[in-house]
Amino acid sequence: MGQFQLEVIGMVHCDIMHRKDAPKNFSESDRKGVLEIYPAYTQGMEDIKVGETIVVLFWFHKSDRTVLKVYPRGDRTNGLRGVFSTRSPSRPNPICISELEVYEVNGNCLKVVGLDALDGTPIVDIKKKIS
Amino acid sequence: MGQFQLEVIGMVHCDIMHRKDAPKNFSESDRKGVLEIYPAYTQGMEDIKVGETIVVLFWFHKSDRTVLKVYPRGDRTNGLRGVFSTRSPSRPNPICISELEVYEVNGNCLKVVGLDALDGTPIVDIKKKIS
Repeated sequence: MGQFQLEVIGMVHCDIMHRKDAPKNFSESDRKGVLEIYPAYTQGMEDIKVGETIVVLFWFHKSDRTVLKVYPRGDRTNGLRGVFSTRSPSRPNPICISELEVYEVNGNCLKVVGLDALDGTPIVDIKKKIS
Repeated sequence: MGQFQLEVIGMVHCDIMHRKDAPKNFSESDRKGVLEIYPAYTQGMEDIKVGETIVVLFWFHKSDRTVLKVYPRGDRTNGLRGVFSTRSPSRPNPICISELEVYEVNGNCLKVVGLDALDGTPIVDIKKKIS
């Protein structure tokens, strides 16, 4: 069983420039930014409405993909944990999931709040949240 | 901006053999099955405990990746919708997210309840659920 190829459907634009400045996850973030969806995929973003919470899948392209054990949140007091029991961005497939609230839709751009991804992070999917 | 390569970390084993038999999503499923994690990745599953709800990312390898508009749940009465405003398994990157309860851990296998994926579906990531 091999590998699959992921297409990049868009990119994040925001003022989070360094990992040390990024909120640990969406549930602890009030950071705003823009999800730009590339022209080949804009049909797919139709029907996303202002006020909705969307589930966004990012590809954390700066992550170390060899990591299987981590200190959660860098805290070394509680020992190493298996990466699949954490939300660490470093993992074999660095897909990170955020739930973001849409506050403006403008052409191929969604303005959102709750970001925990760096500026320039590739977007690979957007889904409806199961409420 | 190009493409990224996804590694398969494991596979689902269950008795859901055809898409027509699959629950529409995890929140409507009581189906049980096994998540087999491949040897290269088993270190990463340490610390996943019985009774926990885990977030599992599948690659729905049978999905049509050209789809940008869908009839949600196949219902044609409400018109086509942009795929990113739905949970359709057919989408440019067919990563599907399920929240599954672990009821047994056995070596490199996690027995779970709540499955909505077909037998043989590749697993690409497992995360802690944000409660």
